[in-house]
Amino acid sequence: MKKAFLTLEKAKEIDKEYSTPYHIYDEKSIIENVRAINKAFSWNKGFKEYFAVKANPNPFILQILKAEGCGMDCSSMSELVLSKAVGLDGNGIMFSSNATPASEYKYANKLGAIINLDDFTHVEFIKNVLGTLPKKMCLRYNPGGVFEVCNGIMDNPGDAKYGMSKEQMFEAMKILKGYGVEEFGIHAFLASNVLSDKYYPMLAKILFELAVEAHEVTGVNITFVNLSGGVGIPYKPEDEPCNIANIGEGVRKAYEEVIVPSSLGDVAVLTEMGRFVMGPYGALVTKAVHFKHIYKEYVGCDACAVNLMRPAMYGAYHHITILGKEDKPCDHKYDITGSLCENNDKFAIDRMLPEIEIGDFIYIHDTGAHGFSMGYNYNGKLRSKELLLKTGGEVQLIRRAETIEDYLRTFDCFDIFEKFDFEGSR
Amino acid sequence: MKKAFLTLEKAKEIDKEYSTPYHIYDEKSIIENVRAINKAFSWNKGFKEYFAVKANPNPFILQILKAEGCGMDCSSMSELVLSKAVGLDGNGIMFSSNATPASEYKYANKLGAIINLDDFTHVEFIKNVLGTLPKKMCLRYNPGGVFEVCNGIMDNPGDAKYGMSKEQMFEAMKILKGYGVEEFGIHAFLASNVLSDKYYPMLAKILFELAVEAHEVTGVNITFVNLSGGVGIPYKPEDEPCNIANIGEGVRKAYEEVIVPSSLGDVAVLTEMGRFVMGPYGALVTKAVHFKHIYKEYVGCDACAVNLMRPAMYGAYHHITILGKEDKPCDHKYDITGSLCENNDKFAIDRMLPEIEIGDFIYIHDTGAHGFSMGYNYNGKLRSKELLLKTGGEVQLIRRAETIEDYLRTFDCFDIFEKFDFEGSR
Repeated sequence: MKKAFLTLEKAKEIDKEYSTPYHIYDEKSIIENVRAINKAFSWNKGFKEYFAVKANPNPFILQILKAEGCGMDCSSMSELVLSKAVGLDGNGIMFSSNATPASEYKYANKLGAIINLDDFTHVEFIKNVLGTLPKKMCLRYNPGGVFEVCNGIMDNPGDAKYGMSKEQMFEAMKILKGYGVEEFGIHAFLASNVLSDKYYPMLAKILFELAVEAHEVTGVNITFVNLSGGVGIPYKPEDEPCNIANIGEGVRKAYEEVIVPSSLGDVAVLTEMGRFVMGPYGALVTKAVHFKHIYKEYVGCDACAVNLMRPAMYGAYHHITILGKEDKPCDHKYDITGSLCENNDKFAIDRMLPEIEIGDFIYIHDTGAHGFSMGYNYNGKLRSKELLLKTGGEVQLIRRAETIEDYLRTFDCFDIFEKFDFEGSR
Repeated sequence: MKKAFLTLEKAKEIDKEYSTPYHIYDEKSIIENVRAINKAFSWNKGFKEYFAVKANPNPFILQILKAEGCGMDCSSMSELVLSKAVGLDGNGIMFSSNATPASEYKYANKLGAIINLDDFTHVEFIKNVLGTLPKKMCLRYNPGGVFEVCNGIMDNPGDAKYGMSKEQMFEAMKILKGYGVEEFGIHAFLASNVLSDKYYPMLAKILFELAVEAHEVTGVNITFVNLSGGVGIPYKPEDEPCNIANIGEGVRKAYEEVIVPSSLGDVAVLTEMGRFVMGPYGALVTKAVHFKHIYKEYVGCDACAVNLMRPAMYGAYHHITILGKEDKPCDHKYDITGSLCENNDKFAIDRMLPEIEIGDFIYIHDTGAHGFSMGYNYNGKLRSKELLLKTGGEVQLIRRAETIEDYLRTFDCFDIFEKFDFEGSR
């Protein structure tokens, strides 16, 4: 049973100040969750969660996470700028990118970020770009082939564009050591949104063993292992959520089995659980604005794929609650659609829900990660505002909605900009 | 054999002023193509192509099309604002939308646009919103069920969220007539990107017959039939392009067979061939910036799915030419990837191409429609500039590239905006 963190009463109160659609985030749950993560890994003294900024690039969210001790996992210049603005630098930033432009390596280095090299060819590239390399660097691993994530769930790292083979990684370490790098870390992202407590410990074991082998073969100093992301969240009501305490304990066992007996000494365990950190603690709230009774029953709402693309792009399931009708029987079958001229713009297809009335608040669950951030402007539609439901119960605007001016901003250096009827169209 | 409209020489010349990545459009071919469309339908005195703004929402492109007699097919407030800015109103604008907000109906009506009602429920909605309805309106048809597009290609209009059943449409016409509407049109979009000259004539026949029947049953005055889009373009080298002269001729035959013998009199044929109008005459030009030799061979380029989402979203094929290597053998197999932390960010997978060197211009074909316009900002990546290759051979900037300021603009009402390091990150 999935429960909305907003009541109808609260939604109505918000509606007086902030019109739908909006993404809203639940500060109290975010903090509780991060604390649970930190507790689960508190056995490891170097532990740090690097939040994947791409999951939710809002500085107010980043500030909350930073206050709980998180660093930021960045993949672009914009994300570095966001992380710097909330006061992070140095070991507070992990920079992981592929096909990386020289300018981004330079800026990441300027901030003192830990740079994660995606490919063997980047060794010479970054040496040429930076001249002097940072003392501490990370390398991304790709084991290749087909890989059993857990319980028969398979993934195909060999088809992924990320990382280096073991041989390439060891060779890169030797070269980088020669270039003056003193501390190394290992990173691998092998699966996404896995709902099993066994995945992370299994991945940890692979990476811990790789760290020991790397040290033995190359003699380099491995000081951290970055388990990246992959811990899933229960999008569907029948999904069993992960237990972060069990996951932390599983990783600890692997650590004691592999790292402790080795000559590596203290190795910090790092994570990048963007989806797990934020996913369940955001929702897209939209209103039913139109019905359509034809070959199927449709409810048109005031949000669309511009606000949440996962259903359109991946056919992803997002649970829906009709606020105030939580206890009504789900005896009506609807397609819940947005207004795009794009037939995949449907938040739900053949979904059983309580009877919907025009004006009902449609609460779309689990948009805290890869929700707003994947928004586009197709059909000239605008991205929504974001709100924060604070621990004390107040609601704070944390991003204003886009305007048509914003949408047309890249014409501001042309005469045509004067002809856009911004006033009249408001 | 697909041919780039840029040579390596021209790309190098452009590179001196405008860095990659960019979308570039070929004015000469755009104009020739629109003239061919207008000629193919010149037998119909009311003919007008309404360009689907969503395919390429750039005012400089819209100006070229307007000068050739095109109107604009709009689906949102932003698109109405763009159309107005290039001097269109009244019959120059068709407004087709679903789950439409009241404000957009009001603005469309203010511009005198032809409003296309998506659903029966919108009849009362728009009456309430506007009070007095326009004299001329359009209704969108959905025949339901499964539908043979042509040659065994099936489509499923019954699963589409658009349009009304015949019964609903006739009922809507009667009500609207009672509300003072004097002229009616019929619209239907039943298939997308169909590479057959037979589809449009077949669709035309269905809609012409529907127009005759509507007139007979309801007595309303049908003055236009909007065939919408669906005419495809050859994305793959082996695809056979449509012949617009044949298509126009096929529609003419259906017209003579169905409309001429009827009592309808002159009925204007309208089209919305966004993809056919612009698709082949745009390209995304990007540079090879990184190699990756691992389990596969990768070429990383300076564009990503942010600039062109169709391959990531639909697995769509876009042909690639390595400029200057048009005559070299395609004896290397590559994945051409962007820099997003998203494994579907690949412009091509296992593509046979000439050997690529760092710095090569990678010309991605057929981005003139639904290319730039589907761009997003995932990973904080920025959307590119757009260029126009003018008929005379000069190159004109027609949209500047996004900046990090643009990307973070929706924080400009917060103190944090002052902390963004725009200068330092440039």
